[in-house]
Amino acid sequence: MSTKKPLSELDSICNQAQQAKLELRRASQSIKDDALKYGAEYILKNVNKLVEANEIDMELASKKDLQTSFVDRLELNKSRIDGMIAGLDKVINLDDPIGKEDKSHISPSGFEVSKMRVPLGVIGIIYESRPNVTADASALCLKSGNACILRGGSEASNSNRVIEECMQLGLEKASLPKFSIQLIKNQDRKLVNEMIKRENEIDLLIPRGGKSLIKIVSEEAKIPVLKHYEGICHVFLDKDADLKKALEITVNAKTYRYGICGTMETLLVSEDIAKIILPKLKIELDRHNVELRGCNDTQNFIETKLANDKDWITEYLAPILAIKIVKNLEDAISHINSFGSGHTDSIVSENLSSVEKFFKEVDSSSVMHNLPTCFADGFEYGLGAEVGISTDKLHARGPVGLEGLTSQKFVIKGQGQLRS
Amino acid sequence: MSTKKPLSELDSICNQAQQAKLELRRASQSIKDDALKYGAEYILKNVNKLVEANEIDMELASKKDLQTSFVDRLELNKSRIDGMIAGLDKVINLDDPIGKEDKSHISPSGFEVSKMRVPLGVIGIIYESRPNVTADASALCLKSGNACILRGGSEASNSNRVIEECMQLGLEKASLPKFSIQLIKNQDRKLVNEMIKRENEIDLLIPRGGKSLIKIVSEEAKIPVLKHYEGICHVFLDKDADLKKALEITVNAKTYRYGICGTMETLLVSEDIAKIILPKLKIELDRHNVELRGCNDTQNFIETKLANDKDWITEYLAPILAIKIVKNLEDAISHINSFGSGHTDSIVSENLSSVEKFFKEVDSSSVMHNLPTCFADGFEYGLGAEVGISTDKLHARGPVGLEGLTSQKFVIKGQGQLRS
Repeated sequence: MSTKKPLSELDSICNQAQQAKLELRRASQSIKDDALKYGAEYILKNVNKLVEANEIDMELASKKDLQTSFVDRLELNKSRIDGMIAGLDKVINLDDPIGKEDKSHISPSGFEVSKMRVPLGVIGIIYESRPNVTADASALCLKSGNACILRGGSEASNSNRVIEECMQLGLEKASLPKFSIQLIKNQDRKLVNEMIKRENEIDLLIPRGGKSLIKIVSEEAKIPVLKHYEGICHVFLDKDADLKKALEITVNAKTYRYGICGTMETLLVSEDIAKIILPKLKIELDRHNVELRGCNDTQNFIETKLANDKDWITEYLAPILAIKIVKNLEDAISHINSFGSGHTDSIVSENLSSVEKFFKEVDSSSVMHNLPTCFADGFEYGLGAEVGISTDKLHARGPVGLEGLTSQKFVIKGQGQLRS
Repeated sequence: MSTKKPLSELDSICNQAQQAKLELRRASQSIKDDALKYGAEYILKNVNKLVEANEIDMELASKKDLQTSFVDRLELNKSRIDGMIAGLDKVINLDDPIGKEDKSHISPSGFEVSKMRVPLGVIGIIYESRPNVTADASALCLKSGNACILRGGSEASNSNRVIEECMQLGLEKASLPKFSIQLIKNQDRKLVNEMIKRENEIDLLIPRGGKSLIKIVSEEAKIPVLKHYEGICHVFLDKDADLKKALEITVNAKTYRYGICGTMETLLVSEDIAKIILPKLKIELDRHNVELRGCNDTQNFIETKLANDKDWITEYLAPILAIKIVKNLEDAISHINSFGSGHTDSIVSENLSSVEKFFKEVDSSSVMHNLPTCFADGFEYGLGAEVGISTDKLHARGPVGLEGLTSQKFVIKGQGQLRS
């Protein structure tokens, strides 16, 4: 009995999303941009209301035993709301991918074949208690012509409702269906379990949050999931590395930010340059209080904790670095393909044929040359926006922009040809 | 205990495929083409051996109660083997997609961003007792730089083994790993159940065969599946249709071949032209002995069986056609999106703005203008080859060529930039 209510809420949300997607599919870029612009205006008009709702969320959260970083992500203040609006502006300025046709070719029978970019339909997003995601994710879905169903963390529910209301007012003012953006209000966990099985009503699921959420969603879902697992990223210092670059890139890759997925977790050093580079690196990394865990060979050059097998497969997200000395490029590639997570890996080298080999053979979503792995990010890549970073190989791989929320269909233009 | 053997066979096959994929990833187009050329030569040299093996398969099959069409697909004779070799030639002549880089752009921080096309790794193919698929599918995997694991129908096992042997000899002669192409010998069904869960060892599953096989595989698999469900394809005769084209396209779409997925199953007719076109159509379709099942309104113009709700969602694969009269273009689009299978749908019209609306709003993998739906096919589209037709929206959609067996990774070329 108790499950009846949440399920009926989900039923009506899915139903409304199905209706909305039909109109969104034919919406022009200017109408979608208008809706986003109006949405941003409503958020601006309702800043006080939003701050108050967030204060209630913060107050309730303070009674729970939550991590500081969790509470920090939950908080909205006027400057963060400005940031949210700036984020909407960024999406408005993106090019609309919908309706674009690839270059056509003529088929053997003489008709014209091309591919047209189209929305997926309905996108489900499950995320932590971060109210800015409510604006950001719904804007990306709308811009790509998709209806969205949002399930945010319960701690942000008051803030999320105000944001949803503003975005919906924006939609209505632009004469688009209000239910193009919908937030699930009921916080019953059963709803998530049910949501991820609605394969006929939701086309793509995007879990944004911790590894455990992503794991549960991908294992249980009947719907395709845009997965972003961990980033066990490597920097390989090749024997032909420029030592200054090697030093700077290594330090930047580790210390730019410890908590992001593009942070280097393992450093691989060619045995030919270990003696020169490792002592210098140790001085720099000691200065940043980075704990070093080196392989046996590392101990010949610097003193570190001894790394064990687990270190090669750990995403520390902390000031800790595993170091391994490898014989050569082949060894480095083999280590990365065996122990990495297929996220982002970089080679520091001045030898272009080594770089080319590294590019071809490292099986990761991003391969880099003479760059720190912490650059792995949609904005940094110039994609304009990032829906997430996919560690899957199919559909979208690496940082995913608007195109990851779309599909392509074949458009076939004939003149009455018949098949014989 | 009894499961031990099949599982250990699968273990070693997966292991060998993992080894092979590393070499295939860096194999040049010419080496891969050599392997296919040599494979074709070995098949030609071993025609008699292959025909004999097939005779054993046919002999064993004759003792089972199998459909004629099943036995027909199983049979190999010299001319069919020539066809198989011609198929390998076609794959040799395809352009190798691997290593191709998209146009690059410069990121905000000044480094160069592009995408490179790379193999997926290991592809599993589960298919019916059709020995030609063994050659065809393994060639497509090899050309796209992937190792493959083949599980063919048990009735073709003797034929399949000879083909596998020839392809492997070709690989060895070209100095590529023999285990790039592997056939699972053990016919225990447990193996399929196990195979579809090896998400760390197989990157993509392609079930080729009946709907029930595809359903089981997609429901149980832990690995991404290239799904090809049914084709409930529509032709819509718009009020602005050219009547001669309408007539010819309708007859061709239904009668070209009844058993293929691109065959039209439902005809939608604008009420404005029903009176003129339906009697003419009936004469033509009667001539082909096509059974007509019309909606209520259809009965005003021609006599047919009365269609019921099930007819709109049935893939007949037979000389049967459902006919529905619709008010207008909007009604037709709405019918297709509600009852179709998202495969291929065509509009016959001389009104280009109606065509454009149809293209934009029909949510199918292929939308066509003035063409019969039976053209839905990778070769007909000029893709050179077809791995299958995907009715999914993600990754590959519609007829899938070599690119559907690949992925793209980001290639990021820097000059020592740091993130600040």
